[in-house]
Amino acid sequence: MPSYTAPVKDMQYVLHDVLGISAQDIPGYADLDRDFTAAILEEAGKISADVLAPLNVVGDTEGCRMENGIVYTPTGFKDAFEQMKEGGWPGIDMPEEYGGQGMPYIMNTAVGEMFSGANQAFTMYQGLTHGAAAAILAHGTEEQKNTYLPPMVATDWTGTMNLTEPHCGTDLGLMRTKAEPQADGTYKITGQKIFISAGEHDMADNIIHLVLAKITGGPEGIKGVSLFIVPKFLVNTDGSLGPRNGVSCGKIEEKMGIHGNATCVMNYDEATGYLLGQEHKGMRAMFTMMNEARLGVGMQGVAQAEVAFQNALEYAKDRLQGRDVTGPKNPDGPADPLIVHPDVRRNLMEQKSFVEGARAFLLWGSTLIDRAHRNSDADADGLVSLLTPVIKGFLTDKGYDMTVQAQQVYGGHGYIEEWGMSQFTRDARIAMIYEGANGVQALDLVGRKLAQDGGKHVMAFFDLVKGFAKDNAEVDGMAEFLEPLKKASKDLQAAGMYFMAEGMKNPNNALSGSNDFMHLFGHVCLGLMWAKMARASLAALAGGTSDPVFHETKLATARFYMARQLPMTGTHLARIQSGADTVMALDAANF
Amino acid sequence: MPSYTAPVKDMQYVLHDVLGISAQDIPGYADLDRDFTAAILEEAGKISADVLAPLNVVGDTEGCRMENGIVYTPTGFKDAFEQMKEGGWPGIDMPEEYGGQGMPYIMNTAVGEMFSGANQAFTMYQGLTHGAAAAILAHGTEEQKNTYLPPMVATDWTGTMNLTEPHCGTDLGLMRTKAEPQADGTYKITGQKIFISAGEHDMADNIIHLVLAKITGGPEGIKGVSLFIVPKFLVNTDGSLGPRNGVSCGKIEEKMGIHGNATCVMNYDEATGYLLGQEHKGMRAMFTMMNEARLGVGMQGVAQAEVAFQNALEYAKDRLQGRDVTGPKNPDGPADPLIVHPDVRRNLMEQKSFVEGARAFLLWGSTLIDRAHRNSDADADGLVSLLTPVIKGFLTDKGYDMTVQAQQVYGGHGYIEEWGMSQFTRDARIAMIYEGANGVQALDLVGRKLAQDGGKHVMAFFDLVKGFAKDNAEVDGMAEFLEPLKKASKDLQAAGMYFMAEGMKNPNNALSGSNDFMHLFGHVCLGLMWAKMARASLAALAGGTSDPVFHETKLATARFYMARQLPMTGTHLARIQSGADTVMALDAANF
Repeated sequence: MPSYTAPVKDMQYVLHDVLGISAQDIPGYADLDRDFTAAILEEAGKISADVLAPLNVVGDTEGCRMENGIVYTPTGFKDAFEQMKEGGWPGIDMPEEYGGQGMPYIMNTAVGEMFSGANQAFTMYQGLTHGAAAAILAHGTEEQKNTYLPPMVATDWTGTMNLTEPHCGTDLGLMRTKAEPQADGTYKITGQKIFISAGEHDMADNIIHLVLAKITGGPEGIKGVSLFIVPKFLVNTDGSLGPRNGVSCGKIEEKMGIHGNATCVMNYDEATGYLLGQEHKGMRAMFTMMNEARLGVGMQGVAQAEVAFQNALEYAKDRLQGRDVTGPKNPDGPADPLIVHPDVRRNLMEQKSFVEGARAFLLWGSTLIDRAHRNSDADADGLVSLLTPVIKGFLTDKGYDMTVQAQQVYGGHGYIEEWGMSQFTRDARIAMIYEGANGVQALDLVGRKLAQDGGKHVMAFFDLVKGFAKDNAEVDGMAEFLEPLKKASKDLQAAGMYFMAEGMKNPNNALSGSNDFMHLFGHVCLGLMWAKMARASLAALAGGTSDPVFHETKLATARFYMARQLPMTGTHLARIQSGADTVMALDAANF
Repeated sequence: MPSYTAPVKDMQYVLHDVLGISAQDIPGYADLDRDFTAAILEEAGKISADVLAPLNVVGDTEGCRMENGIVYTPTGFKDAFEQMKEGGWPGIDMPEEYGGQGMPYIMNTAVGEMFSGANQAFTMYQGLTHGAAAAILAHGTEEQKNTYLPPMVATDWTGTMNLTEPHCGTDLGLMRTKAEPQADGTYKITGQKIFISAGEHDMADNIIHLVLAKITGGPEGIKGVSLFIVPKFLVNTDGSLGPRNGVSCGKIEEKMGIHGNATCVMNYDEATGYLLGQEHKGMRAMFTMMNEARLGVGMQGVAQAEVAFQNALEYAKDRLQGRDVTGPKNPDGPADPLIVHPDVRRNLMEQKSFVEGARAFLLWGSTLIDRAHRNSDADADGLVSLLTPVIKGFLTDKGYDMTVQAQQVYGGHGYIEEWGMSQFTRDARIAMIYEGANGVQALDLVGRKLAQDGGKHVMAFFDLVKGFAKDNAEVDGMAEFLEPLKKASKDLQAAGMYFMAEGMKNPNNALSGSNDFMHLFGHVCLGLMWAKMARASLAALAGGTSDPVFHETKLATARFYMARQLPMTGTHLARIQSGADTVMALDAANF
């Protein structure tokens, strides 16, 4: 069975050595000193490794089952859910007035990576609740907030997000679910929603569904969509549970992975709903917390890559097979461990350099979100909005690829379920799809974010790279990291220029390159992170760190990323600059 | 439920317009005129679409089960197996004297792609039998051939290949299975083998296991490995079945995919075995047909990509979601089909250009195999030996990626099992692992094949590319295809030069780049195939073909491959030329 060890040391390094969070001018960050974050991360790491990870295979094997309308989660999930509640983990960044711990979002990202890495299917129950609570927090009336937030922050009640219908996912303007206004100001919600994660289960007293629906007589298409709170059990004025509402689970989907999470078809049959936010502004209300939600999914991609890497690394050290071509490394044994072989190392280094670079990217992105919210910093908000599709799309695409590579280290043992490597791959696959499929992320990036506010945010990103390069140009040992970063950044700029020039003539010239642009951008971001980590580790070594091996390893991994991953930017640029012609040439009938 | 349509037209095009097979000077090829191959391919296509494809989901859902030592295949497999026998498909390229149809190997590849695309798990039962029979044909005594081949060619009996043991896969020198010589010339085989595809099942009267084992007292390591025939039921001299042999299935593995194939743990307990070939030359005997076996696995990667692409394409045409950014294409409908969106097209064109290019590569490779065997052409044998790891490794890596991309077209519907797209991905995953994991293919290519016979075969490959470019330099319309091909081929040569220069100093400089080299080589091969197809289609158009749309589509797809896929060669070269330093820098303990 696979194991999970929380990457506390690496997170501490990123938070303090690289990002210097406790010195940042963000409310709440001053409290986040090394000792404090270490205590949090170690506790979260403990529950991840000891409670969540052992249930990961159980969840995959048993899955969820429905009997007489009741959905049962896998053995052990309920107990673990209680332990998570007791630790206060689900509300770590929720306001204290509703029972949360009021910490910055960055701490939610850090512990969230651990929980997801240990057990993604399990962690989704609280993740969805977090998202629904955040929407109520942003758009709810005082009464709604007081009614729903305390039990949701405590995860006595859980939450869901209901967008997709059988015939529409991305294009929500097509939705058919109806909301009939009632005399008492409530609505009767009728329709079917699919792919509802945690839609029904046995771990909470109530489930608060956030449902997108069209108010009868409202505008056509996406402009007529509103958001509703639809509780499984209606809530009495004193907060106690009233009668069952007209919502039920029609079936649980059979899926490729995340079997421990109940993905439900939800049927609404004149269910009582309460408008959340304004009429016809449902998309805005649903997507208020979109940057966080999408960063959270990007984080899942990294989390699965991390746990898969950990296990692949152990296997590569243990499994004896073949001999080092330069001479035996385990001469007394029957063979050398897999890790002596250059191609196995190449594979492992790709995983390691991705996971650590991506973790830094997620945590840096989280500082931007905190800056946007806690400092009302519009520039930070604009920058993280630009980066969000890159974080979601690039990190889940690559995260998935890394789980496939980790599986490959095991040979045939990676294909049978016994070793657990197949599950990491199957679980990681969903993150490329939900919360906006990665093609939609690429479209959002190129079709919307790039030109937002007159291209201000992408310019800010380039300035940031240039500024970093300039500030560190004279630092001993930095040149080998700055040169590839500057080259990659130039490729990104050239791609942006191409879109400006050719996208004007034909938008397809830009959109045909959207996926490549997202990946090109992702590599530049990870290149920037590795340059920042190199800078931090050079400083630590110059300052006589007590752990030189850790920092030398960081430098070696940075070198690998620069030499072996950043060159991808050239290919992405070439593809982009080839334009739309070859992509759009065929009539649909001639494919 | 997904469907499968056999790509008869595209195969006919490759066989005749591109490869001109019936004019090739290979014994048996003169019979392969257009009408003859059309008849074969249409029949094979019919049984694939009507009989095998409908059982694909059944096999995945039901899997195989073992009760009291008997392994039951999924509902319908047994009937389908009978129909395949009646059609004579399993022995299509087997000698007529043993009941086969004696056709060239290229026809086995063509129909094999169909069978695998329709149902990989099912087709493996006859595929393994084919491999075992080929080994007996090559190394068996007259008596062994007469005893085993007729029922195996007819698949009344099936075959298996037993290599892997729990502690050793790639490094077979570590194996522990023992063969005790007996006074009557037979051996008693004792040991455990794992991952034995089709190891036990209910579709054949007998199962002929080919088992690698070490004869007691023989040399250490790989030099002491011999190959044995171990029938499930011993065979009487009159060919009737005798008593059950000491071999049994210990359990069926739970796997990520190919659930319809029984992957067995096989226990040998003093089972009677008959030496096949010479003592201690078991590896040679097992791997005689390695080029075909590995080409067959590469073909599986392409086959899964083809069926996944077919379904993704249909979905992209049917599913209405969003609007074409340049104006509605389905103005009377609620939305436009997915296929209008540039990134969906980019995805589909990647699939299409891969599948068609790869198919041409497989069929061209098959002509080399036929040339090697039927003409005893050592040059063809050397060239196909060089290309075999590229065919196996590159086509299964990319084939898998394409199934993942096809799944992505479906959004959330690609993740639930209902639509069948997840199965293509899960089934395709194994091809990267078995018959030599792809890392081993890359090692074989760079560590062995490249320098084989003084580098003669890689030089022949470059000459072939150069010759094609030169011969077609003056052909109208070819320049746009030849230029990118020459550039890509130059990258490949540069990589080879780097290995020669730097691999001498340190073999790790070559081996660290082995995976990139395999992919670089693969792109050049597909680039060559697309240039050949462009040439064929330009000729057809110039000759006034009755189907200009087909050939224009080929040209458009060739342009896409050149513009959007071939640029990868630059990245692979850059990675290769960065050498071993960054790959090998870390001590295993510091990862």
